[in-house]
Amino acid sequence: MTRPQTPTLDRVACPADLRALPDNELVRLAEELRAETIAAVSETGGHLGSSLGVVELTVAIHAVFNTPFDRLVWDVGHQCYPHKILTGRRPRIRSLRQEGGLSGFTRRSESEYDPFGAAHSSTSVSAALGFAVARGLGRPVGDAIAVIGDGAMSAGMAYEALNNAGHEGRRLFVILNDNDMSIAPPVGAMSRYLARLWADTPFAAFREMAEGFERALPGPLREGARRARQLVTGVPGGGTLFEELGFSYVGPIDGHDMGQLLGVLRAVRARADGPILIHAVTVKGKGYRPAETSADKYHGVARFDVTSGAQAKAAASAPAYTRVFGEALTRQAEVDPRIVAVTAAMPEGTGLNLMQRRFPRRVFDVGIAEQHAVTFAAGLAAGGMRPFCAIYSTFLQRGYDQLVHDVALQGLPVRFAIDRAGLVGADGATHAGAFDIAFLANLPGFVVMAAADEAELVHMVATAAAWDEGPIAFRYPRGEGTGAELPARGQPLEIGRGRVVREGTGVAILSYGAHLAACLAAAEGLAVRGVSATVADARFARPLDTGLIDRLARDHAALVTVEQGAEGGFGAQVLHWLARSGRLDAGLRIRTMTLPDRFIDQASPEAMYRAAGLAPADIAATALAALGVAVPRFGALRA
Amino acid sequence: MTRPQTPTLDRVACPADLRALPDNELVRLAEELRAETIAAVSETGGHLGSSLGVVELTVAIHAVFNTPFDRLVWDVGHQCYPHKILTGRRPRIRSLRQEGGLSGFTRRSESEYDPFGAAHSSTSVSAALGFAVARGLGRPVGDAIAVIGDGAMSAGMAYEALNNAGHEGRRLFVILNDNDMSIAPPVGAMSRYLARLWADTPFAAFREMAEGFERALPGPLREGARRARQLVTGVPGGGTLFEELGFSYVGPIDGHDMGQLLGVLRAVRARADGPILIHAVTVKGKGYRPAETSADKYHGVARFDVTSGAQAKAAASAPAYTRVFGEALTRQAEVDPRIVAVTAAMPEGTGLNLMQRRFPRRVFDVGIAEQHAVTFAAGLAAGGMRPFCAIYSTFLQRGYDQLVHDVALQGLPVRFAIDRAGLVGADGATHAGAFDIAFLANLPGFVVMAAADEAELVHMVATAAAWDEGPIAFRYPRGEGTGAELPARGQPLEIGRGRVVREGTGVAILSYGAHLAACLAAAEGLAVRGVSATVADARFARPLDTGLIDRLARDHAALVTVEQGAEGGFGAQVLHWLARSGRLDAGLRIRTMTLPDRFIDQASPEAMYRAAGLAPADIAATALAALGVAVPRFGALRA
Repeated sequence: MTRPQTPTLDRVACPADLRALPDNELVRLAEELRAETIAAVSETGGHLGSSLGVVELTVAIHAVFNTPFDRLVWDVGHQCYPHKILTGRRPRIRSLRQEGGLSGFTRRSESEYDPFGAAHSSTSVSAALGFAVARGLGRPVGDAIAVIGDGAMSAGMAYEALNNAGHEGRRLFVILNDNDMSIAPPVGAMSRYLARLWADTPFAAFREMAEGFERALPGPLREGARRARQLVTGVPGGGTLFEELGFSYVGPIDGHDMGQLLGVLRAVRARADGPILIHAVTVKGKGYRPAETSADKYHGVARFDVTSGAQAKAAASAPAYTRVFGEALTRQAEVDPRIVAVTAAMPEGTGLNLMQRRFPRRVFDVGIAEQHAVTFAAGLAAGGMRPFCAIYSTFLQRGYDQLVHDVALQGLPVRFAIDRAGLVGADGATHAGAFDIAFLANLPGFVVMAAADEAELVHMVATAAAWDEGPIAFRYPRGEGTGAELPARGQPLEIGRGRVVREGTGVAILSYGAHLAACLAAAEGLAVRGVSATVADARFARPLDTGLIDRLARDHAALVTVEQGAEGGFGAQVLHWLARSGRLDAGLRIRTMTLPDRFIDQASPEAMYRAAGLAPADIAATALAALGVAVPRFGALRA
Repeated sequence: MTRPQTPTLDRVACPADLRALPDNELVRLAEELRAETIAAVSETGGHLGSSLGVVELTVAIHAVFNTPFDRLVWDVGHQCYPHKILTGRRPRIRSLRQEGGLSGFTRRSESEYDPFGAAHSSTSVSAALGFAVARGLGRPVGDAIAVIGDGAMSAGMAYEALNNAGHEGRRLFVILNDNDMSIAPPVGAMSRYLARLWADTPFAAFREMAEGFERALPGPLREGARRARQLVTGVPGGGTLFEELGFSYVGPIDGHDMGQLLGVLRAVRARADGPILIHAVTVKGKGYRPAETSADKYHGVARFDVTSGAQAKAAASAPAYTRVFGEALTRQAEVDPRIVAVTAAMPEGTGLNLMQRRFPRRVFDVGIAEQHAVTFAAGLAAGGMRPFCAIYSTFLQRGYDQLVHDVALQGLPVRFAIDRAGLVGADGATHAGAFDIAFLANLPGFVVMAAADEAELVHMVATAAAWDEGPIAFRYPRGEGTGAELPARGQPLEIGRGRVVREGTGVAILSYGAHLAACLAAAEGLAVRGVSATVADARFARPLDTGLIDRLARDHAALVTVEQGAEGGFGAQVLHWLARSGRLDAGLRIRTMTLPDRFIDQASPEAMYRAAGLAPADIAATALAALGVAVPRFGALRA
């Protein structure tokens, strides 16, 4: 790999070095930082587009603010690669998102320059306000700066924080990084509003003013900023939405114009005595032509060739679960006009873009707004529709109260398609779908399923479509399927009925969901040791197939449950049943294998499951231990 | 009890009757409806203030809209008593919030006039949008109307829904019921903004215009409304915040002026072709002097004397957990300046008003905004403070993702004080604190406690204050304590260590939390049957006191766990441990008693726990069954 020439960047080991540079060298630094970011991500893959959009902003913030004493909080955190390069992590930047390497997000444990980690959206203003208040109460904390994208502004959490920060009135900087594009093109009235703010405002006018910004403002900044906006927009009385919420609004400014950025940031830093919103307009993928010209602006990329921009996508050996879901749902929608679908800013990620293409009026992208997504779907169900709410496991956490209060309590037939269940690879612990089994399986009236492979997923889509009795959910993992043959049409499964996949005699392995293949591999390993294993696919965490569980328990010397989720989920449901029905009284060699009691860092999913103690060898070893067979070295089974 | 004279109301069995009345009789109807509401709640207790504030609004909506074909969604639902009286439930209105009676909230299963139930805040716009979309897709659904209070506007969920509804652009009515007061006086920039909107706008000016409203507007409503606002406010270019979000804004109007209400609602119903926000200003407690003049406007009242307004509060035999918490935290705050506290619009309900009185700058009321509350607290912890985040169990569900992503993943030492854990009485199933044990106990690094009595609560406050290693939570129930002697100072408990409360030999009952007294009563019942029971208080669901569990299992013929929560929580943690460590292999008579697999309707907490199968007699019966003792009639144990 040829590396870019970066003489200026090479002199910057940390932000203090950067602050020693004259302004005109910062422009050069930004250029080199952009080249280095592109070069690094070309080797690792990652969130390139967002990072390229904030190169100048990153340099300007570190030049003006006294990080890490000043607390810089990047919303979502996936745009932090330039920040990592500038804050002492350049030597490891080519380990980004790799096993044992740097996280793809900000992370407290990684650097003092990451005062608050993030990977889910719209948390930054809340966290920054926490720092601002701690400072006000005497803690040794500097200024608090949140950088938040326009897409993140559709989440209620950001609004809650702005509303509270405006009320508190403390000095606080919120930089709105407005690239008019989060992961998908943004939706919602807010995004339209932002677009209007900057469409109506010629940069030139503001630039002129910003250049002599400090000198130009005689009074305190709040008044100055107001006047600035009035000068530019010509609106004398009204304010922006942010001003209504108690913020002083500055902008929009050109987020790639170093002079403007430095001028405005220095001005607000010198003068702010309350919350300030700086509206910076940036271009996602800025400065790298293949990114700027692609539809998704290289939001998330594989390794790629820097010159051509061509990404090295591994040839898939089986269709991805996401696509299987999208296609299966579209086929159901073809025959059932009551089927509609809801996504929270993830039409591509959930595969709903496939249905959207065919039925654009029946797919609703509500923006990053999982709370609303769930209750909106509940309203659709109450109105007689058959809504599928497709949300990643980790993001469905945002709608948990709505699952309980609006869906489960009312018994409304909302269908939840839960993608990215289990461990997800390079996105690491923050994106793990670890808890959905547990937080759904104890909700009265919910039917809770997990797909063992992509053929099962097709059947579960059909099952959910046909189920009007109450809420129903099905989970499936990230990535490629197992290569199972796909049925032409999904067939509704019998609710609460599992299946035996492999017949054996010694030990029973009861899998819930996509770890079935690993369980079958474990059974192979056991066969080598002379132990015959039955492998069953539970399909349902609720209602449990108690008949199947009883047969497995009765006919085998030991029973092992396996799931890609935390404690308190499927295994716990099995244990509760066994305890309640007295089936533990006389002894049952049962083990419940779940994700362990710690968060698992990024690696390949296989490596993560190994780290989690859920590899086939671990399952086999657990089965042997349950049987009371001595296992001198687990390693032997791994081979 | 004397009942008010209600000749007009007596002729209204359902909204169709009301719609047959001439406008001038609707004023009279509203007066009688108010008197009937006061009379009914004086017998039952309940949310009086909010209901009195919407009497005219309720009449006007049912007069103008075609309920139940038009879908009327009341946000929070606690202001629905006049609505219930008008929609066929008057005969049962004096059973409000009683066992077997009407719910204190809207409820789908109770009436077709309740198309979407609510008890948590800020869900109404999402649900109403669901109805509006279902209508657009051909379902037989009329107009969708959401009535939402100004306090509910601080929740991000409401903003998410407005943002999405503004984007969708469908016909939809949102009535903002602005009484400048939710449960506590509202906070946040939004509430300040609303106050300014109506402070600047003389009703008189609008009234004049509204009286001939329909005639006055020549063009389509959207333009008309805009002009109306401009006429009133004199702002030509800017719009309200709601207009920025894509809504047409009408108001503010006097929510107690029947003529204005009817005129405006008829006008918008006739002309709306997109989302409309109608800003109605009301007075909480309106028309009942004791309510209007009290500080909390009779938000929630006990039975009372109609003439004097005097409430019949039962003399407490022990201090309430809430007060014990508030006092204990205040004492900790006196000696530790790093302690701060966060509440989501519940300073009184959580007892933080006690600390607020003493340390006003260290208590933060963020409004109804649990997502922000949790992450703001995480930011405070990252900034070096020792934050206590005090949120009811049922409302903490709103901050679940933030618990996982911002607190647990980062291991930040936020202290969670979880009031109203378990079943809560008259507020019923929607307010049950059923799931917090389960959703916290599988989060890596969390310490999870439950207080068995108010003295334990004091120690747990001290334990949490002293614990800087990571997040820690403690739950405690609604209502009075057990009368346990309160320690002068709390002493930090050893983390992960339970205690034996009663020594026995035959069966062990392991209680987690406030059901300890019931477990001790069960032990008494067992003693009568000749069975000696050990009773232990686990204190910790995480980390588990595995030494205690092992001893209890080893030294007794059976082990019963008891908790005031759903499956997947404490009992599941115990079972996971026993399974993992092979302690079930040779047989263990274990039973895990939890809340059952259904929602429990309102009654006294005792009656609810009886319905849940968690009365002392149930615990004793379960213990006997586990021991294999024949129990011919459980009823015998109840006696």
